Amino acid sequence: MLKVRLIRAVAISGLLVLGLCGRSQNKIVVYQTDFGLKDGAVSEMKGVAMGVSPDLKLFDLTHEIPAYDIWAAAYRLQQTVPYWPAGTVFVSVVDPGVGTARKSVVLRTKTGVFVVTPDNGTLTLIAETLGISEIREIDESVNRRPESRNSYTFHGRDVYSYTAARLAARVISFEQVGPLLPRQEVVSIPYQKAELKGSVIAGTIPVLDVQYGNVWTNIPGELFGQLHVSFGESVDVRIFHQGKEVYKGDMPYTSTFGSVPVGKPLAYLNSLLQLSFALNQGDFAAGNKIGSGGEWRVEVRKK
Amino acid sequence: MLKVRLIRAVAISGLLVLGLCGRSQNKIVVYQTDFGLKDGAVSEMKGVAMGVSPDLKLFDLTHEIPAYDIWAAAYRLQQTVPYWPAGTVFVSVVDPGVGTARKSVVLRTKTGVFVVTPDNGTLTLIAETLGISEIREIDESVNRRPESRNSYTFHGRDVYSYTAARLAARVISFEQVGPLLPRQEVVSIPYQKAELKGSVIAGTIPVLDVQYGNVWTNIPGELFGQLHVSFGESVDVRIFHQGKEVYKGDMPYTSTFGSVPVGKPLAYLNSLLQLSFALNQGDFAAGNKIGSGGEWRVEVRKK
Amino acid sequence: MLKVRLIRAVAISGLLVLGLCGRSQNKIVVYQTDFGLKDGAVSEMKGVAMGVSPDLKLFDLTHEIPAYDIWAAAYRLQQTVPYWPAGTVFVSVVDPGVGTARKSVVLRTKTGVFVVTPDNGTLTLIAETLGISEIREIDESVNRRPESRNSYTFHGRDVYSYTAARLAARVISFEQVGPLLPRQEVVSIPYQKAELKGSVIAGTIPVLDVQYGNVWTNIPGELFGQLHVSFGESVDVRIFHQGKEVYKGDMPYTSTFGSVPVGKPLAYLNSLLQLSFALNQGDFAAGNKIGSGGEWRVEVRKK
Repeated sequence: MLKVRLIRAVAISGLLVLGLCGRSQNKIVVYQTDFGLKDGAVSEMKGVAMGVSPDLKLFDLTHEIPAYDIWAAAYRLQQTVPYWPAGTVFVSVVDPGVGTARKSVVLRTKTGVFVVTPDNGTLTLIAETLGISEIREIDESVNRRPESRNSYTFHGRDVYSYTAARLAARVISFEQVGPLLPRQEVVSIPYQKAELKGSVIAGTIPVLDVQYGNVWTNIPGELFGQLHVSFGESVDVRIFHQGKEVYKGDMPYTSTFGSVPVGKPLAYLNSLLQLSFALNQGDFAAGNKIGSGGEWRVEVRKK
Repeated sequence: MLKVRLIRAVAISGLLVLGLCGRSQNKIVVYQTDFGLKDGAVSEMKGVAMGVSPDLKLFDLTHEIPAYDIWAAAYRLQQTVPYWPAGTVFVSVVDPGVGTARKSVVLRTKTGVFVVTPDNGTLTLIAETLGISEIREIDESVNRRPESRNSYTFHGRDVYSYTAARLAARVISFEQVGPLLPRQEVVSIPYQKAELKGSVIAGTIPVLDVQYGNVWTNIPGELFGQLHVSFGESVDVRIFHQGKEVYKGDMPYTSTFGSVPVGKPLAYLNSLLQLSFALNQGDFAAGNKIGSGGEWRVEVRKK
Repeated sequence: MLKVRLIRAVAISGLLVLGLCGRSQNKIVVYQTDFGLKDGAVSEMKGVAMGVSPDLKLFDLTHEIPAYDIWAAAYRLQQTVPYWPAGTVFVSVVDPGVGTARKSVVLRTKTGVFVVTPDNGTLTLIAETLGISEIREIDESVNRRPESRNSYTFHGRDVYSYTAARLAARVISFEQVGPLLPRQEVVSIPYQKAELKGSVIAGTIPVLDVQYGNVWTNIPGELFGQLHVSFGESVDVRIFHQGKEVYKGDMPYTSTFGSVPVGKPLAYLNSLLQLSFALNQGDFAAGNKIGSGGEWRVEVRKK
């Protein structure tokens, strides 16, 4: 009996060790910036990571975040992080305040993914949806590329990529990043949440599906479900910018683009299972001059 | 003697096993989409693959296929697949019919490369030039990301990338993809083939060399050879759109761009050894408003 | 004593071997071209490398070099190469003279990085700043993809990527690339160097920070230091194109963008520690119609 317990304890601790190693050592780093890919900046960041360990595996989220658009960076993280395995280290550098007092941090989500970033609002959505396990301020006195002491402006390379690579390669532990910060001090951008009032659901347009011009809302499928709209039934959609109505129309709620004629509007749940609007093989956003961000308001009713 | 034969048989079967393993286990996945790189979609696909196995090596063909342009997807596969080693798994997602009845398939070429894609015409050219070893329909009851049962729209991530990753990582065998389909049922897009009639070679413009504005035809070098044009001799080139002549001119056939003055036209064999037209350091297509696709016709004569 | 010496010798030679292996075998190849990412050309290059060895790790510097802009290619190499570890093999293909008499070469910098490229000026800046250890001409009779004997135009794939992959994978040694060339024969593009005359520093604009529209000069921080401008003090900046003044203005020298109001100009040292000009959250270059290259001249004075 004792023996069995011992074996079980060993087995469990072994699994824990394996589990932790698995979470901490997949050696994956994923980069997001607003640098574009026309110059050498992203490659410099990756070169520094390869200098830390050539065993790391480096990927890109996107480098086409609109310049200085912290909200977009936050949105893309929320969209993408859930699909990467625990232990992955994200680097997100959209940093209009580089050189000012914003903190450099590493957040570990409750799902075990790390995000290395300036704490300027980029973490707003991840913190809400995935939860904060711990957040630490990067101690730049040790976590900074040694050769970079005279450089003022490229934190993305010298602090963020360097620290992410050392964390992903286990050169440093998460604790060695720097001191713990209180979770509630994470910088958050205020925004309109989705809500049902009577028979109307209101929400915002957090982002456009830029490649196709589809309009994505922050209204989750479950909330929309409370309107009891079946596939094929229509919804009344109104879109406002700074309080002014810029679109009003009916469209069927459907599970496939192909179920309406080419060029016609439809409502659907996107891959995040949020209510969205599109034209079949067309550009809903451009055609109706729809944008995204906190100034946009959406109202949906069952027809 | 028997012993020698046995050893030989064992050695040969060993080589076969090694060979098959080598073909099946290079762990490479190459992605092509019309998603662009501005949002998180491609990164979601790759995250799912890394969740299957962090030992996979992920590459991109392009994510700049024009939206919904299945022909372009087919062309880029034909252009690129032959240069990747056997065992490589391609994922091609240009899918205007997502959610409709088109099949999801995996084709294995006779050269041992796999292509995971909706069967909507994307395989037209690969099937012709590399040949079909086998084609299987993806059984989505088992080959679908388990967490994705409520998602209707992102097959690229939940079915195609997931299945490609499991195939490349040998979590499933090719047989476990799903049932065999008859080779002749692959969906094919009709197009004008290159042909010699009398002293005129006719063909189409399957694609533009977009970065430089060079015009590529589907006329292979061997067929062009039947006009007996030597380097330095000229050809008469006519280009028609929907039957209307939009370009007529003479140009030398040459082996190097530098052998004509800057800005002057030339005919040459491109890296696929197909007849092509260019301006030395200029943009032939834009300058003459030339496009690509089945509506374009080219005629070439020896001058 | 002898024994100690022997051990020391063994230890040192062991370190040398380790060092050389480390330098030669990180298996990293980094690509730069003017091909863009819309077609399959870059993927073909990478496929050929994977065919040489699937253990190679392939990265991108950029594929958005303006078409035929050899100077830009030279600049991006200078910017990026120093951040990658010794042993890395760069491939740079910006090759307006493809098929003409320019040599195909591999340069090894004094820092132990390799660059595979047509020798048309691409090496101008790397050769100056990192120094040439050795430069060899590629012997295309052996270092050319065997299947490519009939192809005239895609050296990037058939010679450069193939040779880089074989060098990075140690299929060939550096010596097996081909014969040594005299260092002084490297093709160099002439350009205006930074210099202090009296109280004026003159220089050029080698490149724009294209994503943000910042203007980068070739004036190093140490030279600028000789004007004795402290943070917060102003400089007088004049910019000339082909001898004609196109910009004249004062701006503070600062260590952070955030220390001037949004939209206001500032002078700073960029991540290469070279004097640069920017608008805080604006586009200095576009706003003032500033370009880059040898025809541009900058003058800086202390205010």
